[in-house]
This record gives sequence, structure tokens and C-alpha cells, in this order.
Amino acid sequence: KHIVVIAGDGIGQEVTTVGKQVLDRIAEKFGHEFTYDEALIGHAAIEATGNPLPDETVTKSKQSDAILFGAVGHPKYDNDPSAKVRPEQGLLGIRKALGLYANLRPIKLFDELLQASSIKPEFLQGADILFFRELTGDVYFGEKGRKDDGDTAYDLMIYSRYEVERIAVKAFEAAMTRRKKLCSVDKANVLESSRLWREVVQEVAKRYPEVEVEHQFIDAAAMLLIKDPRRFDVVVTGNLFGDILTDEASQIAGSMGMLASASIGDTTGLYEPIHGSAHDITGKGVANPLASVLSAALMLDISFGMKAESEAVVNAVDQVLKAGFRTRDIADATTPANLILGTQEMG
Amino acid sequence: KHIVVIAGDGIGQEVTTVGKQVLDRIAEKFGHEFTYDEALIGHAAIEATGNPLPDETVTKSKQSDAILFGAVGHPKYDNDPSAKVRPEQGLLGIRKALGLYANLRPIKLFDELLQASSIKPEFLQGADILFFRELTGDVYFGEKGRKDDGDTAYDLMIYSRYEVERIAVKAFEAAMTRRKKLCSVDKANVLESSRLWREVVQEVAKRYPEVEVEHQFIDAAAMLLIKDPRRFDVVVTGNLFGDILTDEASQIAGSMGMLASASIGDTTGLYEPIHGSAHDITGKGVANPLASVLSAALMLDISFGMKAESEAVVNAVDQVLKAGFRTRDIADATTPANLILGTQEMG
Ligand SMILES: CC(C)[C@H](C(=O)O)[C@@H](O)C(=O)O
Ligand SMILES: CC(C)[C@H](C(=O)O)[C@@H](O)C(=O)O
Repeated sequence: KHIVVIAGDGIGQEVTTVGKQVLDRIAEKFGHEFTYDEALIGHAAIEATGNPLPDETVTKSKQSDAILFGAVGHPKYDNDPSAKVRPEQGLLGIRKALGLYANLRPIKLFDELLQASSIKPEFLQGADILFFRELTGDVYFGEKGRKDDGDTAYDLMIYSRYEVERIAVKAFEAAMTRRKKLCSVDKANVLESSRLWREVVQEVAKRYPEVEVEHQFIDAAAMLLIKDPRRFDVVVTGNLFGDILTDEASQIAGSMGMLASASIGDTTGLYEPIHGSAHDITGKGVANPLASVLSAALMLDISFGMKAESEAVVNAVDQVLKAGFRTRDIADATTPANLILGTQEMG
Repeated sequence: KHIVVIAGDGIGQEVTTVGKQVLDRIAEKFGHEFTYDEALIGHAAIEATGNPLPDETVTKSKQSDAILFGAVGHPKYDNDPSAKVRPEQGLLGIRKALGLYANLRPIKLFDELLQASSIKPEFLQGADILFFRELTGDVYFGEKGRKDDGDTAYDLMIYSRYEVERIAVKAFEAAMTRRKKLCSVDKANVLESSRLWREVVQEVAKRYPEVEVEHQFIDAAAMLLIKDPRRFDVVVTGNLFGDILTDEASQIAGSMGMLASASIGDTTGLYEPIHGSAHDITGKGVANPLASVLSAALMLDISFGMKAESEAVVNAVDQVLKAGFRTRDIADATTPANLILGTQEMG
């Protein structure tokens, strides 16, 4: 299998290095051969080529069997709203170029991290949610611009039937293999694009009579997710609402540093942590690499169909946590100092 | 003072009845005279007149000194994405008609409810956030519609400089009277409307050098709100992001049933619970009326400048909770059955 590593910005480099080490160990143990290439994206690509998504990155990605992705972003652009070229264009661009329309974000708590969350353990125990976030439509990709001499700015929130249908189908299929519950999140009481979303999900639902379906407005969903996380099984939603809900849901898993995602479409899959570039801790060797490790596990399972290999990785993470090892972000007041590890040691 | 009560749908009637009783008691105690009128909105108005916002409701509201508002919404429309006339149009319409561009949502925990939340008390104690949600712009009011024979649906997310500026000014002014911290929430790494938002907030910030300003992306903000609620003082954000964050923040206050909001602009203010119409419990006499009572307290303070009267109401709520009384939504396993009250008894 040929894997392209796109480390990107900030802690992306540090964490994908560990993800790759884990893939190498799996290859060794299970007798596979993984070859690698590297490609640029984001701020790193802008610095090197002026372009947040060089053509070469797209070409290499298309020719690969899977992509291990780090993070993009740089504070420099965040504080300069007028910048024309931005690191995030790289990430949005590759999602679009590869047609990665479904972003899967499994939220599952490792028992050992039950105390790491700000949410009470009795509300978390047993929570197990699989988010399907639509990834190539919505207000992310609609027409955007300025008018009135720059004094008015707009972004078009837009969805077409086929876009909603294909992600809904993936979500329902997943629900059939799980607890057969699906929650679709929209804002149909205000937005026309949400009304189309709801219409299409209702239609697709008819093909899956065994799945218990509910529709929630995004505001209510953001509240229910903390109030009662266990009520959710599969959640399907648009690009913007999915961005918000999955970051929020990271608190269910104790830390953002633990959460992996798979972006899939009709071809090559891309695997990335849900955390960002975290420039405040970049280069300090303290970033939690487990989201990248668990992204590698998702790659083994989804892109390569290597279930046993994938489980071996997840079990290894579980063992390491059971043994008491923590990175800083998942440590608490009771963690002995000698069990708090850096990025490489945790790997 | 002349007050229009717009009860609306679902539990709106039950809870505003209590809000009004509390205003009457204040009038009696402090020697004021409050007169009342009623007006229709939402599903109730559609049933009676075919229009979710009858002209008469707007006229009466404009002539009043303040509006005590209940809730709008009906499940019938939620499951019918194709309905043309919808209860929510009443609420959106009155916000627009009265120019209520600033929605203030104070999130403060009554000590007695520290245990009622799914969030650990040690993360909540002392949390005190004042949200400023922009209320008459954004994707709520941009052009919306269908094309491609109905197979594509869109909503325009749009902001103009003056809209961002006037809400930012209100938020900075409030920050100056509080802990002098302001967090502006947007998605400037993706959205052009957010980049304008950030630009304008940065400019307004220059006029308030004493206020410590931070900018967060909506996904990070949704996460930080649960991870560390005490880091926030004043939060200012757009209509959609504000809708989501304030519902989420209700978990900080233990229950949605406790949260009041004030919608203000250049004229008459509108005071409403942040909870919705809750048809599942309508007519059962179990709804928590305290959000309506606290909305009345905000009215006394903001629209009538009656600080002592407003404090008397808040203190009364505090005393009732200290005495152990609860409605169902804020009761827990340890609450004795005889202290669990219905809507009227709690009033
Ligand atoms: C970096 C940003 C553009 C991106 C997004 O909003 O999609 C990130 O938050 C994510 O969730 O992958
Ligand atoms: C009922 C709905 C239109 C409304 C909104 O989204 O503004 C409600 O959720 C609110 O927050 O007041």
C-alpha cells in the first residue's frame, strides 16, 4: 500500500511522524509493505511555493492508496482577515479535489479517560457516537465575496439533493451495523437549505425502516450532546454544523487530542486528527499523537480492509492508557509526573 | 408602564402567566402601575388569522414600553419541510420589525443548581458569561430559496459593517462594566462574512484599550465553553453561532428552564426565555417558569431602569431555590418529592 503523508502545519509534523511509526510497526508485525511519500499543504506549502495546495500534492494524493494528514493553519492569517492566500484553502481544496464528501468522526471514550472530561463520568460512561459530517458542500464552498466597497460580506449556504442523499445513505448504512439509531441535525425552522436537507433525509429513511430516526435543530443538538451524550448513535449533519458539533463532542472523549477522523468519497481516503495545528505547543514535543495514531487505525480499517491490524492499534492505545501513561492534555492532578510523556515517548 | 404579553405557542402561555404575576407583585410592592395587553404570534396566530405575525401584534408592540414574550414553534411544521407559513416567521418578523438587533443572554449559575448540570461543579463554580448575539442579520435574514426544480436550496449568510459595529459596541460597553474581557466568535478561516466580522471587531476594540480581546473560531468556542466556561466574560457573535452557543451554554446554568434573554435595539425591548415551546410538556403544568420570571427581571432592569425591583425578583428566585423548591427539570435524585413543584406553585 502506498501512503502519502501530508503533515501540514504546527504540530502536524510531530503527530504524523508517530502515526507513520505505528503504521511501520503494523507492517512489520503483520507482514505488509507500506511505502510512503510526502507532500506539502497549508502554511508550509505557502512558504515553499506560494500555493496552499500545490498541484503536486493533489497528483500524489490521487495516486496513493491513502493519505495520512496532520493539520493546517497559522495564527498569522487568523489575525489578518484581509489575507487572500490562507492555509485552510489547502485543506478545503484537497477535500474538494478528491471528492471527500463524507467525514466520519467516531467519538468513543477510553474508559481510562472517564475522569479527564469536564463532564460528569455518569453522563459519559458508554457514550459511543459516530458523526457523519458532509464535507464538500454547504457555506464552506458556496460563492463568497464582498460588495458595497467591501462593507458587506457574504457566503452562500447551499445544498443540492444528491449531496444530502449520498451522505445520508452512508450514515444510514452505518446505523444498520450499530444501534440502528440516527439523528439528523439541521436548522429547518429557519433555513431553506436545512429544509431540503430534512426532506432528503426523510426520503432516504424510508429505505431503512429498521432505523429509528430523529431530527434535531442544531441549537438543541448542541445542548443535548452535553446533557445526554448517550442518547446518540449515528449523527448526520452538514459541513458547518458538523464542524461545530464534533469539536464540542471532543469533550465527551476527554480531549481533542484523542479524536481521529476519516474523510472518504469515491476514491482515496484521507485520515486526520480532528485537532488543529496548535501553534502554542508546536515544536515542544508535548503534543498528544494518539489522534494521529487512531487516524492510522481508521485508515487500516476503512481504506485497506485490515480489521485485525486496526484493532491491534486501538488495543495498543488502550493498553498504554491502562498502564497509566498520559500526555499533558489528558493528565490530571492525580497523574504521577513520571507517567506524563512527550509526543515521541507516547508513540 | 405598558407591557404587551405575547405568549405564543406551547408552554409560552403557562410561563408568561407566571412572569406577569411576578410583575404584578413587584408593582404592588414598589408602588408602580403596570398595564397589560395581549397579542398573538406563531402557530397560535396562524390558527387565528393565517398569519404568524399579524399587523396588530407589531402595532401593539411598538406602542408598548416592553414586551414579555413566551415561545413559538409547533412540531407539525418541523416535520413538514415544505410548509410555506411557519410559526418561527412570527418571531423572526418581530425581531426585524422592531429592530431588535442585540440579544443579551446572561448565563449565570444559581449556587443551588451546581449539581443539576452534566458538567462537573468544579468547572462551573463562578462561571458568569454574558452573550451578545446579533439578532437581525446573518443567514437568518439573507435571501433564501430554491433552484434546479427545487433540488438545490440556499440561504445567504451576509453581514454589513454597521450591523457588526453596533452589536460590537454594545458588547464592549458591557465588558467595561464587568471583568473587561471580550471574546468574539466567528469562522474567519473559512467565511468571508466572518472575516468582515473580525475586521470590524478589531477596529471597535481600538476604542476600548482596557478590554482584553480574543477571537475564537466557532468550533473551538463550542469546545472551550464546556471545557472551561470560566474563561469567558462577554461573548459577542453572529445570529447563527449565537443561537448554537447560547443553547449549549444552558447546560452551564443547569437547565434551559432557567435562562432569560433581552432583545434590544433602538426602541421597545422584548424579553423572552431562551427555551422553546416544548410541546411535549405543554398543558401539563410542569414547565419551569423561572426563565420567564428572570426575563421579567431583565425587563425591569433594562427597559424600566428599575434596578432594585429587578434584584428583588432575582433574589426571590434565589430564596426559592435555597429553600429547596424545584421544578422537574432542575430536580435530581436527592430532591424530596414534596419539594418538586408545578409551574403555578413555583410562581
Ligand atoms: C481548519 C478548518 C478549515 C477545518 C474545518 O472547518 O473544516 C477544521 O476545523 C476541521 O474541522 O477540519
Ligand atoms: C425559534 C427559532 C427561530 C429561534 C432562533 O433560532 O433564533 C430560537 O432558537 C431562539 O434562539 O430564539
